[in-house]
Formats: sequence, C-alpha cells, structure tokens
Amino acid sequence: MPTVTALAADLAAGRTTSLQLTEAALARAQDPAGEGARVFTRLDADRARAAAQASDTLRAAGIVRSPLEGLPISVKDLFDVAGQVTTAGSAVLKGAAPAARNAPVIDRLIAAGAVIVGRTNMTEFAFSGLGLNPHYGTPKNPWDRTTGRIPGGSSSGAAVSVSDGMAVLGIGSDTGGSVRIPSALCGLTGFKPTQRRVPNDGVLPLSTSLDSLGPLAASVRCCALVDAVLAGSPAPSGAERPLRHARLAVPQTVVLDGMDATVAATFERALQRLADAGAHVIRVDIPEFAELPALHARGTLAAAEAWAWHRALLSERGDGYDPRVASRIRGAQAMGAADYIDLLHARRRWIARMEARIAAFDALVMPTVPVVAPPIAELQASDDAYTAANGLILRNPTLINFLDGCALSLPCHARGQAPVGLMLAGPAMADARILALGEAVEAALAD
Amino acid sequence: MPTVTALAADLAAGRTTSLQLTEAALARAQDPAGEGARVFTRLDADRARAAAQASDTLRAAGIVRSPLEGLPISVKDLFDVAGQVTTAGSAVLKGAAPAARNAPVIDRLIAAGAVIVGRTNMTEFAFSGLGLNPHYGTPKNPWDRTTGRIPGGSSSGAAVSVSDGMAVLGIGSDTGGSVRIPSALCGLTGFKPTQRRVPNDGVLPLSTSLDSLGPLAASVRCCALVDAVLAGSPAPSGAERPLRHARLAVPQTVVLDGMDATVAATFERALQRLADAGAHVIRVDIPEFAELPALHARGTLAAAEAWAWHRALLSERGDGYDPRVASRIRGAQAMGAADYIDLLHARRRWIARMEARIAAFDALVMPTVPVVAPPIAELQASDDAYTAANGLILRNPTLINFLDGCALSLPCHARGQAPVGLMLAGPAMADARILALGEAVEAALAD
Repeated sequence: MPTVTALAADLAAGRTTSLQLTEAALARAQDPAGEGARVFTRLDADRARAAAQASDTLRAAGIVRSPLEGLPISVKDLFDVAGQVTTAGSAVLKGAAPAARNAPVIDRLIAAGAVIVGRTNMTEFAFSGLGLNPHYGTPKNPWDRTTGRIPGGSSSGAAVSVSDGMAVLGIGSDTGGSVRIPSALCGLTGFKPTQRRVPNDGVLPLSTSLDSLGPLAASVRCCALVDAVLAGSPAPSGAERPLRHARLAVPQTVVLDGMDATVAATFERALQRLADAGAHVIRVDIPEFAELPALHARGTLAAAEAWAWHRALLSERGDGYDPRVASRIRGAQAMGAADYIDLLHARRRWIARMEARIAAFDALVMPTVPVVAPPIAELQASDDAYTAANGLILRNPTLINFLDGCALSLPCHARGQAPVGLMLAGPAMADARILALGEAVEAALAD
Repeated sequence: MPTVTALAADLAAGRTTSLQLTEAALARAQDPAGEGARVFTRLDADRARAAAQASDTLRAAGIVRSPLEGLPISVKDLFDVAGQVTTAGSAVLKGAAPAARNAPVIDRLIAAGAVIVGRTNMTEFAFSGLGLNPHYGTPKNPWDRTTGRIPGGSSSGAAVSVSDGMAVLGIGSDTGGSVRIPSALCGLTGFKPTQRRVPNDGVLPLSTSLDSLGPLAASVRCCALVDAVLAGSPAPSGAERPLRHARLAVPQTVVLDGMDATVAATFERALQRLADAGAHVIRVDIPEFAELPALHARGTLAAAEAWAWHRALLSERGDGYDPRVASRIRGAQAMGAADYIDLLHARRRWIARMEARIAAFDALVMPTVPVVAPPIAELQASDDAYTAANGLILRNPTLINFLDGCALSLPCHARGQAPVGLMLAGPAMADARILALGEAVEAALAD
C-alpha cells in the first residue's frame, strides 16, 4: 500500500494526479470480483471525481491545502455528510433524514483537500469488534479470501477499503477498539487518539464517554498526518523518538491470556526486535487490568450510553436491528442510574491509579488482538462463538478506551503471514509521544 | 454584623485582637440562652483559641496572611477536618472514622489565617432547603425567635452562626440553594460560585454534578474576599461595576409564582431602587425555566447522585436517617442509567440555550425565596407542608445550579422587617461580574 508521503511526492512531481488516484480507487471499489459491494454502503463516484478535478486544478495553480491534498479517502458510515443519510451500517436508518451539515471532521478533511470516495460499511451501530453485518454483508479480510475471514470491526469497510486500494486512507471510530481491531486483523496501521483531541459532533454516538475518531492507513506517518487534520492541529513535525533506551512496558496481566500460537510467536519476535533496536522491554504486572470485570459487573459505559440513545428506536424498530447488536444494547436495560454513576467515579479512580502505574514508561506494548482473524462462517453460525470471539478481540483495545488513553496498532507479522497487530499505548494526551515512538517501532519491525 | 473589612481595620489598628474576637464568638456559641447548642455539631474552643493566639503573634510580627487573618469562621459539618468525624448532620455517621486530612478548602482557610470555631449543623446530608434536623435540633431564624421559624437550609447552622455573632463568616455548600436560602431567610449575604472554581474534594457529596462551596456573610465584599480564598485566587481587586446602564433581566417565568405579599412588595421595592440607581430593569420571559419539571420527570441529578452514594449506607443504617431525607434519596432508586444519561445530555443542551437567552444581560434578578421563613412547628408536623415548602423554597436557587451558574443572595428588606433575599445570578464563570455588580446593588438597596 502506498503511503501518504509517497503519493504526495508523486502528485508534486506530476507522476500522477488526484483524478488518476481517484479513478483507480473507484475502479477497485466497483470491480465485481472485489469486495467493494460489501465495503461501501454508498460510493460517491461523481462527487469524488469533482473533488479530484478541483484538487488537480488547485495544484496546477500552486495550491496544496495539506499533505492529504487530492488523496482518495473513505469515511465510516457514522459521520454526517451534508445531504446524505447516516445509516451507521443499520437497516432501520435507511429512511432517516439526510444530514443537514457535515460533521466537523468531515469539514476538516474536505478543507484539507482530501477526496471522499464513499461511506464505509461497519458493524451495525459500531457495537461489536468482529465486523459482521447481516444487512450490507461482511467484507472479507484481505489475508485469506478463500476461507473468508472477518475483517474485524466495527470499522470493517474502512480497513478493507484501504487494504484493497479503494482508498488511501480510512476514517473510523474507536469506542473499544473499532479502529485498531480491523487494522490489526487486516495488516494496517490504525490510531485511536485521546478522545478530547478530535470533536465528535455530527458522528452518530455509540458511547459518549468513549467514542474517539481516528485513521486506518499504511503507516504511522500516514496516521499522524491524518490525525493532525482531524484534530485541527498543525501538521506534525516528523521528529522521531528513538527506540534506544525507550522504556516499553509489556503487561503480563490479562492481555497475554488466550493468545493463539501465531500471535504468541509473532508478538515475541516483535519484542525481540524492539530489544535489538535498543529498547528496554520490561515485563510488568498491571493488577488494575484484572479489576475491570468486577468494575463492570453491573454494566458497561458503552452499553448504558448506547441504551440511552437507542431505546426509543429499539422500541419502534427493534425488529430491524441485527439481533446480536440489539441484544448487546439491551444488556444495559436494567442498569440503574446509581450503577452508572458509581462506574463513572470508579473509572476516575482507576485512571488515576493507572496513570501512576505507567508513569515511568514511554509506552505500553501488547498484542492488539490475541488471535488471528477467525472465519466469518463460524461466527455467523453460532451465538456462543460470536460472543466468545467478540469478548476476546475487544478485550485489549478496550483497556485503553477505559483509560481515556491513546494507542497505535502496528502490523508486526512477516510479509505474507497472518496479520498480527502490536499495540503501542499511552495515557491521555500522550498522542505525540506514541506517534513519534510508533515510527521508530515501525522501522524496527520492518522486514 | 461587622464586615471583614471593618474587622480587619480594627485588628490592624490594634482596637481588637483575634483572641478577643474568638472569645466573643465562643461566648455567643456557649450562651445557654442562645442557639449555639443547635448551631454547632462540634465547637472547637481550644483549637480556635490556639489559632487566634497564633494569628495575634504573627500580626505582632507584621505578618497578615490574608484579609481573613484572625477572623472566627464556622464550617459546615460536611467538610473534612483532619482528626474529626464529618457527620453531615447525620446520626448514622457519628461513629465514622475521623478524616485523615483536611479538605483543600479547609487547608486554604487555615493558610489564610482564618480561625475555625466549629462545625455547623445542617439538614441531614444537605438534602433539603428548610434546615430542619431531627438529630441535632433546628437552629431558630434570628428574625422571629418567639415564633421559632426555620433558618433555611441546608446550611442552617452556618447562617445562624453568622447572624448571632458566633462567627464572622460561615462556609457552606450549595447544591440547590443551600447557601443562598439560609442567607435569604436569615438576612445575610450568600454566594454560590461557579462549581468548577472551588475544589470539592474532602467534602461529603450530595450531588457531584451540582455541589458548590461558598460563604454566608455580612456583605458582598465579605463574600468576595472569602470566595477568593476558597478558590485559591488572588484577593479581588475591589473594582466596582456601576448599576448605571446595567442591564438586569427580571424573569417573568416561574420565579415569581407563589410569592407571598411580603416578598412581592419587598422585591418590587428593590427593583424600583435599582431602577432609581440607573439600572435598566428589563422584565423578560425565560421559557426554558418552565421546561425543568419535564426534564426531571424521571428524576433529578441530585437524587440520582445521592442514591449512588447513599444506597449501601441506607441499606445498613436506613433506620437512623431522617425519614424525610431517606425518602427523598430513595426517590431515585428506580432511575435508570439511560434516564440519567438523557438528563445529562438534556442539561447540556438547556445550558447552551439558556446562555444564549441571557447573553445580552449583566445579570438575572429574582427573589431568592418567594416566601418568608415559615414556622418550624408547622413543617415538623406535616409531611405535606414539608414537601410543599421545600419545593417552593428550593425552586429559584436550583435553576442556577442546573445552569452551572453563579449567584449572590443579598438582603433587600427594610431593617427590622422579615428578611427577604434578592438573587443576582449569571452563567458559569461570570463570578467576578456578579460580585462586582453585587456591591453596587447592595449600595442601592441600603437603607
């Protein structure tokens, strides 16, 4: 996959144009032999061509609005785009009113010169980490098209749009791993920023406490460039943070449980490479990680906040929901206001203890997902298999959402092997450090 | 009642000492003919004398830590003081562990040189505006000792400690009027700051969304000086904001309903005085005020948050609670997490509309409480009378807590008449403006 930096250089040198990049992306998306029909809930070919032509015209006049100028991107079907219906991967919202205005992040992408090719498919209402969607189909993981494996979710279409060249970049949301999980399972780099850095107005909510918006892309630098646009910040300096003497904590609590042999071996090999590059790889106990099930005994923030948003719609149109999503949302029906208030307070205390626990380290390192992508058919066939896989796959990313932190998922497998993601995480507002360190990790892991 | 400014001048001139002021306060508190036994849940005579002596020693050496140096103050029995039990006016907490450390605001008061004479009585757990307390007695309103009228609550002891000279200043908390109501009913000046300006760690919570901490005192300037200490801010400049051309909005919606003849006449007279002083007194509709009952149809933030804190204690020791307080807290038992989440979101939208509605005005003006203080015996005798009076008395102050705003209550009655409070209120962070305008209002209302 080409990076933003490489494509920007090609565009600057006249080796390609935005229209050529956009036509190539659209052609991939419209290829009947490809996954396009399951990747996009709406493809915006005419609008994308117009934006690309405008970008080429501006570039010819010497105007380059940002490093994303002229690049085809996809946006998850959760973001309001003026005049379009935001369906959130759901059948029940197909007839909803079109959005009156763009979400602020959409405005920022357009102002940066990005070319939006379409809206990507997702787990209905973003409420599962697997990426199955009974309404619009499930895009297949690029690694093993023959078996037909899950792409990971909820930003499933976002990941496959990038892996399959239907977009250079995908924009997703991450409430419990929804950017990082599909990045990990599809071999991409994904970034979940600190929530408060990127406005989530105009984005259909799953969990107002946890929803954060970020990119899925070919490299850490790509993520950093998109993140700056989403956050309304100046383009990052590109300063690197060397791995030599970096203190990397590898939690031994919870996050290594249930790894399959491929992930275990791939992760250990990655840690060795980081150590070879001069990092201090320090295995640490993080007992706070083991507390989360008890903290959530009466329900999760995500379920409570989803139930608050969905309960009216569920009572009117519940039959049209994916039953597995509806059932997860209904899980919070019995949660009391006091349970929720207790959880908010417990979270604040937990974050304070976690921040003290990890203050001495430059980052936490763990497998993003402890298993390689399972076959779609197995999970479709069994509610138990669905529930077990979903819990296992969401487990590690969710820790960082609850921390109000930031995290990268970087591919750490050898070329041609099953994709495995390595998560590099920090507390709230450590975004610049994690991204700079991520570039050094990426270099150390390169084949 | 002497003001902070007058007493500071007396101390500076050697006309009195901190020890003399403190002995006078203690004598009032210990006078068997007075209200002291019902005003304090704990009087700290020895400790107060030591602090006063230390203050006098420092002053003799030329050290004056703040405008509060050497002044006797009382603190509501809701604030942690190291080594003391915080009972919150409750019988069930009598045997609780003593606080390990001071609340930050207590540290700030001590560092400012204030002399804490004791902990003041209150509505149990601060959850009513009347000030009745079946465990420690109800201090009588200073206006009409013969009848025995309520002091207002929940900071009942705080108000009477100041009105009766047992302290120069009282520190209270205000979740729905608990500083402003007793100030209004007892003829004092009370200030409820914007919540975020004063830390409420180490203060037993009623409602974490709404609790704010502020002074009850003899004048607006007294309040401003104490507020700066509580907020950890530099002493206020004392700059005045003239009433001439000030735009004062008098809401016609909700807040004038149910006024008794005394309050109606007193309030109208006060408005006339403000107009005579050059203010634009503008009567406005505020339809948002009428929305609050519907917004709270499924419960209030205060009840939900109180239930979250109290439910374990209620199940163990519910028999020891004031039944009227227990019943109000239990009112939120059935509130769902989604109801609470909806209310938080509705509040944010309501605040945004309110801030736009009042942006053109320098302050809102309304009666703090629409009736004069009713007799204690009437409310003790009847649950219905208690509930009706409580709802009416909390109604206006609560609007400003829900707004996340700030407000002064200033006495506006003629000397010797029944105390009536005039509330001057603004949105979040308008504190300096409301205090500066408050000084001008106070001057205009002076006999």
